[in-house]
Amino acid sequence: MATPIEKKYTDSRPNSQKKYQSSEKLFPNGVTHDARMMKPFPYYISHAEGSKKWDIDGNEYVDYKSGHGAMLLGHAHPEIIKVVNETIAKGSLPGASTELEVAWAQAIKNLVPSAEKIRFTSSGTEADMMGMRIMRAYTGKDKIIKFEHHFHGWSDGASATGGVDANWEYGIPKQVLDTMVIIPPNDISIVESTLENDNNIAGIMLEPTGAHMGQYPIRPSFVKELRELCTKKNIVLMFDEVVTGFRVARGGAEEYIGVKPDISSWAKVLGGGLPGGCVTGQAQFMEILEKTPESKGMYHPGTFNAYPISAAAGAKALTIVKNTNVNEIAAERGQQLVTGINNVLTKLEVPGYAYGQDSLVHLKLGVEANSVEDLINMPSDEPNVFNSGALNHQLGLSLLNQGIDSWSASRFIMMASHTEEDVNKTISAMENAFIEAREQGSM
Amino acid sequence: MATPIEKKYTDSRPNSQKKYQSSEKLFPNGVTHDARMMKPFPYYISHAEGSKKWDIDGNEYVDYKSGHGAMLLGHAHPEIIKVVNETIAKGSLPGASTELEVAWAQAIKNLVPSAEKIRFTSSGTEADMMGMRIMRAYTGKDKIIKFEHHFHGWSDGASATGGVDANWEYGIPKQVLDTMVIIPPNDISIVESTLENDNNIAGIMLEPTGAHMGQYPIRPSFVKELRELCTKKNIVLMFDEVVTGFRVARGGAEEYIGVKPDISSWAKVLGGGLPGGCVTGQAQFMEILEKTPESKGMYHPGTFNAYPISAAAGAKALTIVKNTNVNEIAAERGQQLVTGINNVLTKLEVPGYAYGQDSLVHLKLGVEANSVEDLINMPSDEPNVFNSGALNHQLGLSLLNQGIDSWSASRFIMMASHTEEDVNKTISAMENAFIEAREQGSM
Repeated sequence: MATPIEKKYTDSRPNSQKKYQSSEKLFPNGVTHDARMMKPFPYYISHAEGSKKWDIDGNEYVDYKSGHGAMLLGHAHPEIIKVVNETIAKGSLPGASTELEVAWAQAIKNLVPSAEKIRFTSSGTEADMMGMRIMRAYTGKDKIIKFEHHFHGWSDGASATGGVDANWEYGIPKQVLDTMVIIPPNDISIVESTLENDNNIAGIMLEPTGAHMGQYPIRPSFVKELRELCTKKNIVLMFDEVVTGFRVARGGAEEYIGVKPDISSWAKVLGGGLPGGCVTGQAQFMEILEKTPESKGMYHPGTFNAYPISAAAGAKALTIVKNTNVNEIAAERGQQLVTGINNVLTKLEVPGYAYGQDSLVHLKLGVEANSVEDLINMPSDEPNVFNSGALNHQLGLSLLNQGIDSWSASRFIMMASHTEEDVNKTISAMENAFIEAREQGSM
Repeated sequence: MATPIEKKYTDSRPNSQKKYQSSEKLFPNGVTHDARMMKPFPYYISHAEGSKKWDIDGNEYVDYKSGHGAMLLGHAHPEIIKVVNETIAKGSLPGASTELEVAWAQAIKNLVPSAEKIRFTSSGTEADMMGMRIMRAYTGKDKIIKFEHHFHGWSDGASATGGVDANWEYGIPKQVLDTMVIIPPNDISIVESTLENDNNIAGIMLEPTGAHMGQYPIRPSFVKELRELCTKKNIVLMFDEVVTGFRVARGGAEEYIGVKPDISSWAKVLGGGLPGGCVTGQAQFMEILEKTPESKGMYHPGTFNAYPISAAAGAKALTIVKNTNVNEIAAERGQQLVTGINNVLTKLEVPGYAYGQDSLVHLKLGVEANSVEDLINMPSDEPNVFNSGALNHQLGLSLLNQGIDSWSASRFIMMASHTEEDVNKTISAMENAFIEAREQGSM
C-alpha cells in the first residue's frame, strides 16, 4: 500500500504517471539510466534554469541531481546557450580537426598541472576504458588495481567489484573480471602486499576523494602513499576525475589533494553540460596513442571525439571555472548544506552524518560519526532501519513533494547557481521529510 | 621530398599548418581521432553547410567524410539547428527522464521492425559494448564470434582482430582477446564448425553489409544463413547498424537485407549529427537490463544516456528519414558516383573497382573486378603500387586540392545534400587526381 508520502507524490504528477506508461513500452524498466528508476514512477522534466527545474506537471524543484554532476555552472547558463547556438549554426560534425578542439584542450591545460597531452572521448566510461588500456600498454602488464565501491564507468573491466555487486558483473566473462584486482582503500599495506604477490599489475586507479564521488571517503595521505608506491614500483597511477574534475578544485582532485597522477580521466564539468570525456596525462603516457615508425600506437577512433559543440561549450565552461569563483560558491553552499543537515539530525535525534568534499554532499543515515575519519574507520555499513534504501526512498520522495530533487536524500551535488535561500529551503525540507517519515512509520 | 600534390596542399593551407603546430603540443599525433591523422598536416574546418565545408584558410570542399557517416541530412540542416536551439534554451542535462527520450525512442520504433525495446548510450562504441554484454548475460556463455576486419567500436573485446592488426589489440589483455573468436565471413561452414567445436559461444555480431561500412562486402545469403544458425543453436545474432542504420534503408540493414536480428547497435544518423548511440532488440533480450525481483538486471549507468539535445535532434532527423526521400537521394548520388568513378578507371586504364551499398561508396584500386561477388571471391588483398596507402594518400590530397574531401580517395559517404553537380565535380576531380598521380610518378 502506498505511504502518505507516495500518495502525495502520485497525486501531484498525473502527466508523469501517464508518460511513464509510454516509457515502459520503450525502455527496460521504463528508464534510460539505472539511477532514473523510481517507484512508483519517475517524474519527467520539461525544462531547467539556474538551480531549478520543472516537471511536465508544473512542479518546481531545486535541483541537486545537477546533470549527474555536470552542471557546475547551473542549468541553461546564458553563455553556454550562446556558444551552442553559435556553433551549431556552423555545422555539428565536420569529421575533421577544428580550432574548437584546440581551444578546449588548451582550457584543460590551463587548469590541470598533469595534463601535458589530451585525448577526447565520447564519455567518462570511454575515458576510463582508455586510461586502463594506456596503463596496460605502457607497462605491458595485464591487471589493474581498483578499490571496492569505486566507480569507473560501466565498461567490462571497470565494472568488476570482486563480487560486491552481482549486477555490475552480470554478463562479463570471468576472464575479464580476473584482470581486475579489487581491494579496500585507505590501507597502504594491503596495496603493498598485493603488488608484492603479483608481478602482473599495470597500475592503480581510483576516485581520488573516495568511491561514488566521495561517499566512501579516502584519506589524502593514502593517495600520497599510492603515488610513492606507483613511482617506486614503476606502475601507473590513474585518477578518475570524472566527478571531481574542475569541481573539488579548479585543477581537480590532483590540486585538491596535492598529488600528481600519471594519467586521469575526465567528463561531466569538462563539457559544460554537453557530452564528452577525455584522458589527460604526462606526455610519456599519452604517447602510447602515437603511431610513429618506432611505436605501434594504441588504437582509438570515435565519431564524437572532440565533438565541436561540446568543445565550444566545454572551453567556455572551463574559462568560467578559471576566471570566476564558481567553485568557491558551490563549495560554500555545500558546506552550508552539510552544517544544516547535521543540525537537523541533532535536533530530531536521527542517527546519521552529513559530509562531503566542497560541492559534493553526502548524507549517511544510521551511523554515529563526527568526522570523515570516523566514517573511514567504520568496519562496514550494515543496513538497519535508518541506513536502508527504503527509508532513503521515502525521504527522497518527501523532498520531491517539497520541491527538492536530490539523489534519494543521500547525495546532493551543488551548482554555483544554488543560492543560500535554495539551501535553507532544502534544510527545512529535510527536517519536514524526517518528520513525515516518522509520522508514517518509515523510521 | 614533397610531391607536387603535397606542395600544392601545403601552399594553400598556411593557417592549418600553423594550427597543427599548436595541436601537436596538445594531442598525441596532433589529432583527436586516428582517422584525422594526415601528412603533411591535417586541415582545420571552420564551418559546414549542406554538402560543403570550409577550412580555416578559406578552401571549400564537397564533403564525403559526412561526419563519419552521421550527417545523412547534410551539414547544418535548418530543422536540426532549430530544434537544438530550442532545446538548449531549456537546459541540457536535467539528470532525469524527459519527454524527448520517449519521442526519440518512438521515432526509432517507427522505422526499425526489430526494435521492441531500446537503451540509449553515449556512442556507438558503448552501444556495441552493451550489445556484447547482453549476448553474454542472455546465454550465460563467454565468447562472441566476430568477423575479420569488422568494426564494432574500440572497446577491449570489440577490438580483437585475431592478430590482423597489432594496433587494435595493443594494451588489451590476452584473456580478454581470448573471449572473442575471429573468423572470415561469407562461409557458413566455418561458422558451423566453430560453433560445433566450442559450446561457450554466446552469439555472433557483424556489420551486416560487410566490414568497414561494406568495404569488404558480405553476401546477403550469408546473413540469412547466420540468422538460421543462431536460431537453431539458441545463440544471439547482433547487427552493428552504427553506420548502416537509417541509411542503407530507413529501417537499416535489417530492412535492406530482410533479416531480423535479435539485437542491434546504432549511432551516427541516430542522433541527427549530435552524439548518441543505442541498443535495440526484441523484448526478451533487452529485458536483460531490467532489475526486477526475479532478475539481476545488467548494470548500465551513463550521464549522457538519452542526452536531451541529441534526443531532440535525433527524433527530428529520424522523422525526416521517415517522411522524406533523403535515403533515396543519397543512394542515387552514391550510385552516380560509383558509375562515374568506374568510367574514369576504364578510361585511364587504372586497375580498380568502385562499389557500395546505396550511399556508401568504396573504391578499391589494384583489383580487377566487375561485381561485388568478384571482390568477395578474391583470396586476399595484397598491397601493390595501385593498392597501397601511399597512392591513396596522394589521390586524397589531390582531391582536397580540388575541393573534394574524401577518405583518402577510397571511401565516399553520401549525404542527401549532395547534388548531381557535386558528384560530377567529384568524378572530374578523380580523373585529374589519377593524371596528377601519374605525372608525379606515384602510380
